[in-house]
Amino acid sequence: MKKLLVAQSGGPTAAINATLAGVVQCAYSSGKVETVLGAINGIKGVLEERFLDLGQHIRSVEDFSLLCQTPAAALGSCRLKIRERSQLEEIVRILRKHGIGYFIYIGGNDSMDTVAQLSAYCEEEGITDLTVMGAPKTIDNDLMGTDHCPGFGSAAKYIAATFAELERDCHVYDTKAVTIVEVMGRNAGWLTAASSLARLGGGKGPDLIYLCEKPFDTEQFLEKVKGLLETQDSVLVAISEGIKDADGRYVSEQVQSKAVDNFGHAYIAGSAKLLETLVQERLGCKVRSIELNLMQRCAAHIASAVDIEESRMLGMKACQCALEGVSGQMAAVIRLTDVPYEVEFRTVPISEVANAEKKVPLDWITEDGCDVTEEMTAYLRPLIQGESRVVYENGIPKHLHLYE
Amino acid sequence: MKKLLVAQSGGPTAAINATLAGVVQCAYSSGKVETVLGAINGIKGVLEERFLDLGQHIRSVEDFSLLCQTPAAALGSCRLKIRERSQLEEIVRILRKHGIGYFIYIGGNDSMDTVAQLSAYCEEEGITDLTVMGAPKTIDNDLMGTDHCPGFGSAAKYIAATFAELERDCHVYDTKAVTIVEVMGRNAGWLTAASSLARLGGGKGPDLIYLCEKPFDTEQFLEKVKGLLETQDSVLVAISEGIKDADGRYVSEQVQSKAVDNFGHAYIAGSAKLLETLVQERLGCKVRSIELNLMQRCAAHIASAVDIEESRMLGMKACQCALEGVSGQMAAVIRLTDVPYEVEFRTVPISEVANAEKKVPLDWITEDGCDVTEEMTAYLRPLIQGESRVVYENGIPKHLHLYE
Repeated sequence: MKKLLVAQSGGPTAAINATLAGVVQCAYSSGKVETVLGAINGIKGVLEERFLDLGQHIRSVEDFSLLCQTPAAALGSCRLKIRERSQLEEIVRILRKHGIGYFIYIGGNDSMDTVAQLSAYCEEEGITDLTVMGAPKTIDNDLMGTDHCPGFGSAAKYIAATFAELERDCHVYDTKAVTIVEVMGRNAGWLTAASSLARLGGGKGPDLIYLCEKPFDTEQFLEKVKGLLETQDSVLVAISEGIKDADGRYVSEQVQSKAVDNFGHAYIAGSAKLLETLVQERLGCKVRSIELNLMQRCAAHIASAVDIEESRMLGMKACQCALEGVSGQMAAVIRLTDVPYEVEFRTVPISEVANAEKKVPLDWITEDGCDVTEEMTAYLRPLIQGESRVVYENGIPKHLHLYE
Repeated sequence: MKKLLVAQSGGPTAAINATLAGVVQCAYSSGKVETVLGAINGIKGVLEERFLDLGQHIRSVEDFSLLCQTPAAALGSCRLKIRERSQLEEIVRILRKHGIGYFIYIGGNDSMDTVAQLSAYCEEEGITDLTVMGAPKTIDNDLMGTDHCPGFGSAAKYIAATFAELERDCHVYDTKAVTIVEVMGRNAGWLTAASSLARLGGGKGPDLIYLCEKPFDTEQFLEKVKGLLETQDSVLVAISEGIKDADGRYVSEQVQSKAVDNFGHAYIAGSAKLLETLVQERLGCKVRSIELNLMQRCAAHIASAVDIEESRMLGMKACQCALEGVSGQMAAVIRLTDVPYEVEFRTVPISEVANAEKKVPLDWITEDGCDVTEEMTAYLRPLIQGESRVVYENGIPKHLHLYE
């Protein structure tokens, strides 16, 4: 019997550990795996041979449920991009050395690129004793090949609930005030669109919603805000971190520094701050900008039950396929119907997923560019349903720690 | 029979509506009150005679529980400071005109000043057909005369849970990174101290905690961070919005603009942002600053059950006293023991409360100024216990709206 290795990569989410739990559960119950190993810090940890025997750490039913309610990658993450064939060779050498026959990588676009490269390498080299499977993860919801991404539903639920609460908060004064909330999303506006779900609890939600898919017109924005202030005191605005002007340049100042991260992504921050200054100067009223920042990706205390359950199922699917000899595929959710919400779990060729980005369809944004359509709501609504039963200890959500 | 008027003031909290619920419940059940009116936008609404008959809006058991889980003042708020005797005269004229014999004002320091002025005016003028009572509210926890303030426990729970989640999030990469989280508090560091409670769930919580009560030494801070980075990858720092240097000047740049709000408070923002820039320049590692912003005061979805229940009791206490002819007092919580946690609800003369600020005792901060002591933990711990059973609708916490 061979060993199974699982690793996590990319930005943290509230659901990525539910996928890990699914992988481990499936492996334990399959009877086909000798040991389940976890690599610390993703593919970087694989290259450095930093492995953890998960059988020593995740044992009881309680461990599994604590793992599912623990935000951020319990095995750690990395941002290492595989650039050379020698790295792939080295990975295979290490996996073989440790008797690993199955490798599941949980992550986003960049991690799926690693899965794609590694499985392609194995095929080219005629390596048949190793299967490599991807399990999706990203709050950005921008992976191709899957109806939506694990982690997105929980982030969306946090964002929607927070907008509902902010709307109540901003409503209390009878003085003119604008609140601009920046939501994560460089190139895909899915998370920002989730602010519209604040309306599902009975509130009016954000007054204006600007996604990064449509060019952001500063003058039109100021006009809209001004118009709203004529008939109401508080104006609540949701904007994507990555809103861009008609020339495709990020509205945020900082992007102009041309700083880029390891994957060549432009480093941006502060679109809301910039608009705050603008509204203050041009409209002269009270303005506040808010960044939902890391909280939107790690607020496991308000995770979506649907998201956590699906994330676990996707981990099981990826593991099951790997054990059956499938390689170079990603586990995916296929939506059958919105109402009642029904899905199927399948796999898609990794080549269809890696290095691609699924953006919001332009016809899911209203004509005037400052709200989302009913198609968007119908799509989003099922993903935030249900509340996870979180176990608290001394008034604080309890987390499972796998390593120091 | 006379009418009872209730109003809310100051910054929103997650628990201020539980106090409103307590007032209304007590008034309904007393048999002594003809009608319960709510003034929209606090004392400003009283002066403008904007009253709501709460009997039309809060009727069922469900209404009461929805009210308790709705963040921010359901009756709206104001920041109006009573400055002239003519305003007091006008208030009394309006209350009498509407047949109001009891007035409960729920709020913080500034609102208690209004209660103090109004009750003193009544006494001086020999007005005996009106009782005025205060009910405390402030996430800042800086009111004198009460062991702690309604709203604080829920904000503390949000902060503690968020720090536990952020600690997990920041832990995933094995690269050097500093995360600086700014917590509300101009002059009192209670909320920032609550970040230490993140440790109660099993995590290590923030590495450094700086309250605004002790002078903030930038060089010592940089040394501490540098020292920690030698043995660990991620450093998580909690700082009060209002940290000041040895000369008492706010560390934040913006305060230097000398902008002040209606009550003469200095307008400050961006201490964390400033330190972010500093760490980046001096230590050269990855840094991120986060503001918990409005979320820390309105995150009712993770309210403390102890806080919500006590807030309701304080509303009942204030109402009961007003109906019994007590005036010029504030309902307060007196702590009897930490373990088991036991309290009593009493009243304190409003003059002991108004315009005073309760800061963190210096001996509850560690010698080196970058953590809190066990006395602080023992004080804080009971206040975040228990999770409110929040009703969700379509995946979003449901809120009660009293007016548009």
